[in-house]
Amino acid sequence: MTQVLAARTADAALRARAGSVIPGGMYGHMNVAGMPDAFPQFFTAGEGSRLWDADGNEYIDFMCGWGPVVLGRKDPAVEAAVRAQLDTGDLLDGPSPVMVDLAELLVEVVPHADWAMLAKNGTDATTACVTIARASTGRRKILIATGGYHGAIPWCTPRAGGVLPEDRAHLGYFEYNDVASLEAAVAEAGNDLAGIIIAPVRQELARDQEMATVEFARAIRTICDRTGAVMILDDVRCGFRLDLGGSWEPLGVQPDLAAWSKAIANGYSLAAITGRDSLRQGATGIYITGSFWYSAVSMAASIATLTQLRDTDALARMADAGRRLRDGLAIQAAAHGFAVRQTGPVQMPLMRFADDTADSTLARIWTNEAVKRGVYLHPVHNWFVSAAHTPEDVDQALERTDDAFAELSRLVG
Amino acid sequence: MTQVLAARTADAALRARAGSVIPGGMYGHMNVAGMPDAFPQFFTAGEGSRLWDADGNEYIDFMCGWGPVVLGRKDPAVEAAVRAQLDTGDLLDGPSPVMVDLAELLVEVVPHADWAMLAKNGTDATTACVTIARASTGRRKILIATGGYHGAIPWCTPRAGGVLPEDRAHLGYFEYNDVASLEAAVAEAGNDLAGIIIAPVRQELARDQEMATVEFARAIRTICDRTGAVMILDDVRCGFRLDLGGSWEPLGVQPDLAAWSKAIANGYSLAAITGRDSLRQGATGIYITGSFWYSAVSMAASIATLTQLRDTDALARMADAGRRLRDGLAIQAAAHGFAVRQTGPVQMPLMRFADDTADSTLARIWTNEAVKRGVYLHPVHNWFVSAAHTPEDVDQALERTDDAFAELSRLVG
Repeated sequence: MTQVLAARTADAALRARAGSVIPGGMYGHMNVAGMPDAFPQFFTAGEGSRLWDADGNEYIDFMCGWGPVVLGRKDPAVEAAVRAQLDTGDLLDGPSPVMVDLAELLVEVVPHADWAMLAKNGTDATTACVTIARASTGRRKILIATGGYHGAIPWCTPRAGGVLPEDRAHLGYFEYNDVASLEAAVAEAGNDLAGIIIAPVRQELARDQEMATVEFARAIRTICDRTGAVMILDDVRCGFRLDLGGSWEPLGVQPDLAAWSKAIANGYSLAAITGRDSLRQGATGIYITGSFWYSAVSMAASIATLTQLRDTDALARMADAGRRLRDGLAIQAAAHGFAVRQTGPVQMPLMRFADDTADSTLARIWTNEAVKRGVYLHPVHNWFVSAAHTPEDVDQALERTDDAFAELSRLVG
Repeated sequence: MTQVLAARTADAALRARAGSVIPGGMYGHMNVAGMPDAFPQFFTAGEGSRLWDADGNEYIDFMCGWGPVVLGRKDPAVEAAVRAQLDTGDLLDGPSPVMVDLAELLVEVVPHADWAMLAKNGTDATTACVTIARASTGRRKILIATGGYHGAIPWCTPRAGGVLPEDRAHLGYFEYNDVASLEAAVAEAGNDLAGIIIAPVRQELARDQEMATVEFARAIRTICDRTGAVMILDDVRCGFRLDLGGSWEPLGVQPDLAAWSKAIANGYSLAAITGRDSLRQGATGIYITGSFWYSAVSMAASIATLTQLRDTDALARMADAGRRLRDGLAIQAAAHGFAVRQTGPVQMPLMRFADDTADSTLARIWTNEAVKRGVYLHPVHNWFVSAAHTPEDVDQALERTDDAFAELSRLVG
């Protein structure tokens, strides 16, 4: 049996300290308060496909910083670009020339993009898209898929605390991949339809992932063309991991605006909005900014990231790693007598147990056992593979997940 | 006469390229589209109190990245902390122990703070404060000073493009430093008053700065105590530049919540929310997050910044530099026959011409001549001094501003 990692005494001490100076001890998507007990809260280091927690335990990492790490941690070319830009200058009194280089690169690699704007958070980008859509059309209604995640400020955050009805007064809802429900929402919005925002894949907590159907993607495009509404692709989570030009390129459907973040700079904080010429005037007319939006280091990191994704086989290697993991897990699950469903893009895997409870007990036990054995997975959120995950990394992870399946069998069998 | 800088051919070429791939050629607060013609759009490098534009022209910098640079660019201790943290790990699958260290440091140096949360943009922090105030009180109304700047998303951005009336449905307005207007707004909000958000100094474009009066600051505190509303200090712009504990410490008035950003990490992207124990539950109940909010490098930079501000005379040196600049400009203006008003904190100077036009013609000409001579100032926005501004830097800048006054005399005299 593979080694079970040591107890997390440093992590426990940090959690105790955090409990007094951070509300709830932690917040946001990296809060492990509700997670199985083996999940560490604090990490100290990362390199390639590996991650170390505060007690020095090493993991093969399948969360990749929840998406941003696309080439692996400490990618040599990205780090070299970062160090060089740090030596030159980061936050000046205006943007650096790298901002123009990056905007040109985005316009080059993203087919719908005639222009780009840069920001810091994915939420900055989705909010800007919605604002540009309203400014451009002079209309108010924005349609969103029920359960879709588009950020964490009052108009979109998934929790109701501090949110007012007015923050969502002009949102309409439809079901993902359900053209009839979309058409109904469009009809209800009438001539006040400003835009439709959609994620390229349906990815909700504790739910199978669902790829968009071609019919659904085309219906959004057709409706926007017919009504003059703005089609917004929220590619914050999937972008630059599935297809360099945008995650619906394989479907042949291009948006009018897209929001990007996460993988855009291999972990450095950056977001982008890209758009068509028809939205340029609307984008010019709104006022968005941030104190650090013009900093050069994360832009230099982005150029080094996107050029590697363009010029190497990184995207193909990432897909290969995801496929290898999925194939291995399928064999193991069957061998151990568990029926599982593996859904979503292979680069963003998620395995769920067919016979799991409503609160994902089997997934929680299995991922907990995987974490104990040095494989970092999530029970209910999609995982992320990077281009640094070699076949050997995946095979080593699979040796350990096989033990986790065995332990799960012992515990629930 | 001091040397007038070379023409900006590289800057012009970059602007032409930017014009095709960035809406309007640039956006946000660093967009110089409406600025006098000598202002460069693009910068390449910075060090200490100095800045270089894309054509290699050197400036003594009095904007400091519009505030974030508080110790001077490439401060050795901050840069060492950044490099060390980069070598260790930045964006992992959870926060690094430095997040706890930083939260503890904030609680130590900020008197009202019982806890801290970290984010990326000043707007993230102000929006979180408003959301926490509403979640904690179960009320809706937030009062804001007319003309105050609290960020750049629909509820607060100063431009109307894409903004809906509902985004501001539950905001009320009062006049800065006007207790009667504040009381009227409070009365109108009635028992639905969730909070009052206020900047420590009135700082609006093309307007004299105005320090808060003790009477006004105390009135806000008293009203919040009386009504159970949350007092929110928006210290994004002034914080960690005037007083380590918060910009109203000299007035002896402490908020319930504060928003911080800009100077918190000497230029690295970070924001913070600090609050009292009474707001801890409300802060725990909202959902805010961002892909890069738990990255360690900017937190390490912040610890290195705040400990220097705490343990050295950096704040005093910054104030000294600001005072020296103000005193010198006063003498020069008088000598050249210009009546001027210098307002606001000396660390955040602003000089305006008493007889200027509505569109600040004299300030625009004078700052343009200063920029031509290698002193970077802004015609209508407050400036920023850093601890890296030595008396010699200020004196060298003053030699050049004296020439700018002389040129202004020749042009309009």
